[in-house]
Amino acid sequence: MSTGDSSGNPPGRPRHGYLGPPGTFCQMALDAWPDPQEAEHVPCDSVLAALDALRAGTLDAAMVPIENSVEGGVSATLDALSVGSDVVIVGEVLVPVTFVIAARPGLTLEEVRAVGTHSHGWAQVRRWVAANLPTAAYLPTLSTAAAAAGLDPRGPSVVAYDAAVCAPVAARIHGLHILAADIGDSSAAVTRFVLVAAPGQTPPPTGADKTTLVLYQRDDHPGGLLELLEQFAARGVNLTRLESRPTGEAMGSYCFSVDVEGHIADARVAETLMGLKRVCTQVRYLGSYARADGRRTPPVEGTTDSDFTGARAWLGSLLAR
Amino acid sequence: MSTGDSSGNPPGRPRHGYLGPPGTFCQMALDAWPDPQEAEHVPCDSVLAALDALRAGTLDAAMVPIENSVEGGVSATLDALSVGSDVVIVGEVLVPVTFVIAARPGLTLEEVRAVGTHSHGWAQVRRWVAANLPTAAYLPTLSTAAAAAGLDPRGPSVVAYDAAVCAPVAARIHGLHILAADIGDSSAAVTRFVLVAAPGQTPPPTGADKTTLVLYQRDDHPGGLLELLEQFAARGVNLTRLESRPTGEAMGSYCFSVDVEGHIADARVAETLMGLKRVCTQVRYLGSYARADGRRTPPVEGTTDSDFTGARAWLGSLLAR
Amino acid sequence: MSTGDSSGNPPGRPRHGYLGPPGTFCQMALDAWPDPQEAEHVPCDSVLAALDALRAGTLDAAMVPIENSVEGGVSATLDALSVGSDVVIVGEVLVPVTFVIAARPGLTLEEVRAVGTHSHGWAQVRRWVAANLPTAAYLPTLSTAAAAAGLDPRGPSVVAYDAAVCAPVAARIHGLHILAADIGDSSAAVTRFVLVAAPGQTPPPTGADKTTLVLYQRDDHPGGLLELLEQFAARGVNLTRLESRPTGEAMGSYCFSVDVEGHIADARVAETLMGLKRVCTQVRYLGSYARADGRRTPPVEGTTDSDFTGARAWLGSLLAR
Amino acid sequence: MSTGDSSGNPPGRPRHGYLGPPGTFCQMALDAWPDPQEAEHVPCDSVLAALDALRAGTLDAAMVPIENSVEGGVSATLDALSVGSDVVIVGEVLVPVTFVIAARPGLTLEEVRAVGTHSHGWAQVRRWVAANLPTAAYLPTLSTAAAAAGLDPRGPSVVAYDAAVCAPVAARIHGLHILAADIGDSSAAVTRFVLVAAPGQTPPPTGADKTTLVLYQRDDHPGGLLELLEQFAARGVNLTRLESRPTGEAMGSYCFSVDVEGHIADARVAETLMGLKRVCTQVRYLGSYARADGRRTPPVEGTTDSDFTGARAWLGSLLAR
Repeated sequence: MSTGDSSGNPPGRPRHGYLGPPGTFCQMALDAWPDPQEAEHVPCDSVLAALDALRAGTLDAAMVPIENSVEGGVSATLDALSVGSDVVIVGEVLVPVTFVIAARPGLTLEEVRAVGTHSHGWAQVRRWVAANLPTAAYLPTLSTAAAAAGLDPRGPSVVAYDAAVCAPVAARIHGLHILAADIGDSSAAVTRFVLVAAPGQTPPPTGADKTTLVLYQRDDHPGGLLELLEQFAARGVNLTRLESRPTGEAMGSYCFSVDVEGHIADARVAETLMGLKRVCTQVRYLGSYARADGRRTPPVEGTTDSDFTGARAWLGSLLAR
Repeated sequence: MSTGDSSGNPPGRPRHGYLGPPGTFCQMALDAWPDPQEAEHVPCDSVLAALDALRAGTLDAAMVPIENSVEGGVSATLDALSVGSDVVIVGEVLVPVTFVIAARPGLTLEEVRAVGTHSHGWAQVRRWVAANLPTAAYLPTLSTAAAAAGLDPRGPSVVAYDAAVCAPVAARIHGLHILAADIGDSSAAVTRFVLVAAPGQTPPPTGADKTTLVLYQRDDHPGGLLELLEQFAARGVNLTRLESRPTGEAMGSYCFSVDVEGHIADARVAETLMGLKRVCTQVRYLGSYARADGRRTPPVEGTTDSDFTGARAWLGSLLAR
Repeated sequence: MSTGDSSGNPPGRPRHGYLGPPGTFCQMALDAWPDPQEAEHVPCDSVLAALDALRAGTLDAAMVPIENSVEGGVSATLDALSVGSDVVIVGEVLVPVTFVIAARPGLTLEEVRAVGTHSHGWAQVRRWVAANLPTAAYLPTLSTAAAAAGLDPRGPSVVAYDAAVCAPVAARIHGLHILAADIGDSSAAVTRFVLVAAPGQTPPPTGADKTTLVLYQRDDHPGGLLELLEQFAARGVNLTRLESRPTGEAMGSYCFSVDVEGHIADARVAETLMGLKRVCTQVRYLGSYARADGRRTPPVEGTTDSDFTGARAWLGSLLAR
Repeated sequence: MSTGDSSGNPPGRPRHGYLGPPGTFCQMALDAWPDPQEAEHVPCDSVLAALDALRAGTLDAAMVPIENSVEGGVSATLDALSVGSDVVIVGEVLVPVTFVIAARPGLTLEEVRAVGTHSHGWAQVRRWVAANLPTAAYLPTLSTAAAAAGLDPRGPSVVAYDAAVCAPVAARIHGLHILAADIGDSSAAVTRFVLVAAPGQTPPPTGADKTTLVLYQRDDHPGGLLELLEQFAARGVNLTRLESRPTGEAMGSYCFSVDVEGHIADARVAETLMGLKRVCTQVRYLGSYARADGRRTPPVEGTTDSDFTGARAWLGSLLAR
């Protein structure tokens, strides 16, 4: 990765990494992140490279994709967050995924012979391509932005494709002409990016928060997952995402990657975390942060902070007398 | 009830009530209770009378029946514990229920025409009576001991029965001759008595404890009880008795009377109590006390006090950094 | 019991037993039962006697109390239904429990020295008695109606009490004068009676039905009851009563007596029964019958008969192709 | 995809597609599949292309990757199975994922400047590369086998990399020299492939089977997933994989992709399927098939076929009488 000349970094201006090169959806996410300190945006080669730089201290934060409304959880990110020293998610950004097909000025759609893009981008424009460019070849690139960069008229012409599927911003950056816009098969496609930082930076609760966890079950037996979910249900905590993930040790050995509504500072989430800690082999806390959609879901009856405080006071009164 | 001459009560010698008159199984329970202070034993007319005297302060404790291995929960006791000012169970005693049929010396079994006993006692000797005294009439009495007392040769002969079904001790106290022993239909019958005291006297945990609760559900809906039981399951707390009890407000309005393994001072029980407090309309704590059978059931994995302490320390470390 | 001269029973007119003598709340229940065949009403000495006569074939049905809004489940009935050859509940009747205190004409309330009644009746008028007859003695009788019968001016005067607590009808039958009416401590008290018959007479579903079961757990372990309740929850079946009942084998060995909404002919109840059969040591089916209150609770989504039929057809289509 | 000259296909010899080109792990899976009919192996361009050909009838079956012990569920396959006309999994194959780095004969490891491979393969050799080829560039290819093919000495030399990360078989096919073997970061990595066929070909149960499903929840509410899992728990069916998958409609709208132990012909699985059908908006059955590892997990107590048959017979006896 190119983390730049860190010696030239003015003190106080933080460095935020993203999945480069410039023009990726990930950069769009970082641009959309409210950032009063005007952090420097540093392109990284991969999710792992970005998180490694964060862990090494050469980055202050990293924006990485975690979930795609079409493709689901981004395995590389989920796994890179789960191993290595602790990092925490401090925020999330939703980026609508809008694809264009772009080429050097002068080329028409009919003239396109080969298309370059990232395999994930390619997967999301299949239907459009089948209908409009049925005979075009496909060449994988490292990112959708890299596909556009390869065609930049200001650079050398070495790539074996003549059109790129990329974000509108990438076409603009690289001086390409848009042959067709909004060519994604799902018009509602959106990617969820998370901003990751070193531990100790959990933002305060906003009332519309999410908490991300990785849970390792003690053993695999019928009803095991049900028992685990009881820890959530007993405190009225709702899951918004649940994925069993291979632990990498053996096929069939899983952990669970989950998102829940609420913040670690909420009593119902805190007690759930402690309950999970007791019944799991390992619980990895990956952060509490404001929801990008700002949706507030009021706690179910009996699970507000004051319900927990009241219950504790009542218990105290029983023990004291 | 006859709570005796309280002015003559030497200071420091406590007064323990029981369901009188002398000779009841309840007195046997009180006799079996380890009591270094040698409390005065005070017969009471009814469970309610005993608990009223306790609440009024004229008794220091009351021994009352709570469950019978043949008949189930003793409704009068369960209900008397559930309403009125708080009292707590501080111990339990199991008394084998062994019935004899006894009469004034000289009478033979063949000569018995009518039998007096409490209706619960009568219910437990039905089969023996059907086989051995098929034509005998039955006269209900206030207690099995009262049946024996009515025949005491030292008293007046006014009762309309000539034999009593009672505990062996009652026959002895009242100078009766035992016509047949061990006549109960169930040879394993046992009654569970509990010693009840004013709040603030919860005995320390022994590792083989029980806690008694009354739970009032927030509302009645499919799966409501399941949700309530999740509070126990999420902390590995086992129930040893569960009874839905009418609240008395309307047919179909219930609360739950439950016994669980463990002591309020055990973290898993304490957190369960707080969880129930949150999800129930009302939780009535009726005491934690040593099990009469001394059976220790080791906490399931992840539910020891140190598991709870460890989980809290871990949570603290997440919040602190 | 006095099952009468069965030879004089005209063919075709059925015989229905009840807890006698005439004037009991149980007779009121039988009177309230819609009975186009005008069955002969036969008083029985006890619940067990009534059920024994039914099992022996000398009765065609028996009306017995099963639950009281003040006292809870009637142990004797629950247990008598659970052992012995199979019988089934075919209907239920709710009888408001209204007590009067009655005496021979001429006696005033102030003159009452001793009160006779059944111990359950006595328990339900405690507060009124404490306020109005604080010094009166109590004499137990075999039933509230028997208390009234003992004072019948047409009979001998041998009882040791001078007033009876009983149902209004019992006072009327026995020519007594009502000294005070509506003296029950709970004005909403109601007793639930069930009509029991030989197997094979389950009435057709009405859409507002109840099913009564006795469940014997395979073994006692934490979460065991939860697993059992999952059988209900997985099919959307709601419980309206649940009581752990001692099996009589040992203290701590329980079965569960439950009422659920719905009829054995409803697919959701049928599949629940089969599920319970698989996970329990024993399941005793005690009948499906119309609810006395006629309350219809529509099945939760996905649990109607057509949902079950549809699911089976879908499964068939998967297997067939 | 190149489904070949179907007119030349001798009658009776089936055509099985796989993710080409020759030399992929997917071909290894197909080679490992016991196939008495000696099907023709047809390379396809993508999972979607293979399944489309199957659905169009130009293939008889398709071998596709479904889960990787390192990367988790293969999104493209899971999603391609979930939409479009029904297809069913008829078997699974586990292929150990062993990577080599290979080049044209003559090149040494020290001389490698750029590495070509599929992005998933690249993700699995990161650590080895960081340690041994820290300065090498990465060029994405359509598959690991395509990376090897690009270096085939018999073909033109047009690729911009000089070494390929691929399966040993791909190196062999394309006449490459292996520079280093077993370079995967996880020595236990294995990929699970499934053979997919048209509906109606569910293989018979073997006693060691798996069933794959996609479940669409009726709505999202706290405890919703718990209710869904109760359908499994109530019949003792164990899950071996569970992933929430975006439905593609909106971020936060999920379905669940699950594998369970057992076969649709097993009563416990069949009843679970019907239960899920009732409580879900949609259930997609993706097949029952023999486990590749042959592991038999005996049904938990009360869930064998004869338990189900016995329960049904018992229910019938209750309804019949």
